[in-house]
Amino acid sequence: MRIIDGGITAAKGFLATGAHIGIKKIKKDLSLLYSEQPANVAGMFTQNIVRAAPVIRNEEMVKSKKKIKGIVSISGNANACTGKKGILDNQKMAEIYAETLGISPDEVLTASTGIIGKEMPMCIIEEGVKKIVPQLKRDRQSSKEAAAGIITTDTFLKEVAVELELGGKTVTIGAMAKGSGMIQPNMATVLAFLATDAVISQELLQKALSDAVDITYNMISVDGAMSTNDMALLLANGMAENEPFTEDSEDYKRFKDAILYINQKLSIQVVHDGEGASKLIAAAVTGARTKEDARKLAKTIINDNLVKTAMYGEDANWGRILAAMGGSGGFFQPERVGIAFQNEKGYLQLMEEGHPIPFDEGKALEILAERDIIIHIYLHDGVEEAIAWGCDLGHEYIRINGEYRLRT
Amino acid sequence: MRIIDGGITAAKGFLATGAHIGIKKIKKDLSLLYSEQPANVAGMFTQNIVRAAPVIRNEEMVKSKKKIKGIVSISGNANACTGKKGILDNQKMAEIYAETLGISPDEVLTASTGIIGKEMPMCIIEEGVKKIVPQLKRDRQSSKEAAAGIITTDTFLKEVAVELELGGKTVTIGAMAKGSGMIQPNMATVLAFLATDAVISQELLQKALSDAVDITYNMISVDGAMSTNDMALLLANGMAENEPFTEDSEDYKRFKDAILYINQKLSIQVVHDGEGASKLIAAAVTGARTKEDARKLAKTIINDNLVKTAMYGEDANWGRILAAMGGSGGFFQPERVGIAFQNEKGYLQLMEEGHPIPFDEGKALEILAERDIIIHIYLHDGVEEAIAWGCDLGHEYIRINGEYRLRT
Repeated sequence: MRIIDGGITAAKGFLATGAHIGIKKIKKDLSLLYSEQPANVAGMFTQNIVRAAPVIRNEEMVKSKKKIKGIVSISGNANACTGKKGILDNQKMAEIYAETLGISPDEVLTASTGIIGKEMPMCIIEEGVKKIVPQLKRDRQSSKEAAAGIITTDTFLKEVAVELELGGKTVTIGAMAKGSGMIQPNMATVLAFLATDAVISQELLQKALSDAVDITYNMISVDGAMSTNDMALLLANGMAENEPFTEDSEDYKRFKDAILYINQKLSIQVVHDGEGASKLIAAAVTGARTKEDARKLAKTIINDNLVKTAMYGEDANWGRILAAMGGSGGFFQPERVGIAFQNEKGYLQLMEEGHPIPFDEGKALEILAERDIIIHIYLHDGVEEAIAWGCDLGHEYIRINGEYRLRT
Repeated sequence: MRIIDGGITAAKGFLATGAHIGIKKIKKDLSLLYSEQPANVAGMFTQNIVRAAPVIRNEEMVKSKKKIKGIVSISGNANACTGKKGILDNQKMAEIYAETLGISPDEVLTASTGIIGKEMPMCIIEEGVKKIVPQLKRDRQSSKEAAAGIITTDTFLKEVAVELELGGKTVTIGAMAKGSGMIQPNMATVLAFLATDAVISQELLQKALSDAVDITYNMISVDGAMSTNDMALLLANGMAENEPFTEDSEDYKRFKDAILYINQKLSIQVVHDGEGASKLIAAAVTGARTKEDARKLAKTIINDNLVKTAMYGEDANWGRILAAMGGSGGFFQPERVGIAFQNEKGYLQLMEEGHPIPFDEGKALEILAERDIIIHIYLHDGVEEAIAWGCDLGHEYIRINGEYRLRT
């Protein structure tokens, strides 16, 4: 597998573009993706009971296993909590894009992100989509514009692309994502779009995506809030013309690893861009009795406001970590726990067998002053492990989220 | 029931005092309570797996149903995550207090709150307790000093006292509490001490306390963090000489209501003093299918960082409320939900049957500018209800928790 410079248009046959059409005040708010050939599609969706109109429609469409040719996404309006009108508006958005392209609305998926409970500006969307469709292109600039069209409070574009060999053919996977707030474990979070030219069945495509989402987007958290709109979509249009492969083949293993790599990169980028985050915190739990215990503990640590503010304050307050673990519902025995901090500045053990170890405050501060910090948790209860990624909680989060609606 | 001016020494036979003995830099850090007569004791304790030494010891002692005569509490050191040494130090603290009073260590409960994982300064405690015991008194000043001795980041003392008639005798209940951070639903949070001169069996005393804690301390949250140290203790020394009463008596009902009233007052004071809080938010869920659904939904709303920052920003962003509900795990049907804000400035409906209602932003701002805000959630799924109390999340929380250890 080779990492290449590229985004959502990296794979053969995928065109994209993005533009400002007037849903938001200034920033880009429309993102279009088009596949020259019908593509298999896999999807993962938010587990929130309150689901935005595009989530409801896309999930149905993915379940139907029909091939699709395009995705129309807008940002600035979530089209969530908008009732029947929102469902109709979302369908209409698909129809507008389909009609402009000369394809069926059943070949179009939709996405939206932004303010909840606001009626969709359908005139702006209709006019904008019709005007922007002719700009669909397959070049680096267009993929960047498409990536810009889906972001909201993000501070940088999130794109990844890789190439790999499958059955002697070069297969490419390109991807883009948005997300910097309302990011929470336990579902497919953020908007993530992946497009590949691989030949692959819908079933295997779904499996590769589901398995990856489970240990990437489902293990990150910026603020513990579960979004109404988030989804990951993976399209495969077959234009690389590789030989079809089965689940037990080496080709599938390579493909699956590439999908995991991309989702890992995107999800860590999302946390890095966490609203107001100044640090990326990884909680790595090892020696757990069960996988579920390891996941619960890791996720609780990165979601705990007291741990998050301690990280922001560069304070080696491991007591808050242990207290958070104790309230997580995950099994462990306090008297066996080891805790350590690690990053490029070094490794510092703070606790062993449930006892605090005297440590050098200067060394702790040196490690905690860095942007990336790993919190190691050693349980000595079994062999299972899990990693969750989160960020600190500082003044910038308050600034961004205390004023969100007024600024957008 | 009459509300009276008083604290932990309001009831007959209870003496108290508080002082600075040097565990903390400047503020009071020792709190002593003494009952002239042996008292029945009821207790509720944190559900965190990681439990401070006093929690472990007190729970055993409450279970044994033996009568007690005193409580020694220190603040500034949690004596949590301190291993076997912490257990021994805690026992030693009880012994020091008992010896100075000339009673048995088995008649002394202990409490501690503050930094986790720090060794107890036993010399300071020994010297301090011996010096301060002679100051035990039953007057208003002493109860205030005792209340001051248990607080950490609190900005005001938390005291309540009431009188009521039981079987022709006047019974008094006095109480004090501490707590402003690490407050989370689902357990007996904070340190709360209640002392009454009522004659009441240990079993009824425990029932009155347990029932009250369930709908008071267990329904408040400042930051979603579960403490290692929190407990509520209720002492009854019988010095009011009322006739004993049974569970189905009017006397028990009056007593239970008084205990509930006190715990409600104390728990709301704790939230009011939430670390960095500028607003008190109540989430009142009605029409739920089950009590458990109502509790889950109410608690999730007041714990959601996006809801909390919106309240801080005085932003009527009801979408975040609905999104938080959707991720709570509590059952509801989004298309039936009504949401309204209310306080002394008025009542404002924002959503009805799952649809947003156009509302006056000026009116919303007028309501949200106040310190107390009720968020009404109408589910129309059943008849169960629950209220949870929380606070907003603003810059002050970050300032307090980002620098905690360095300041203490």
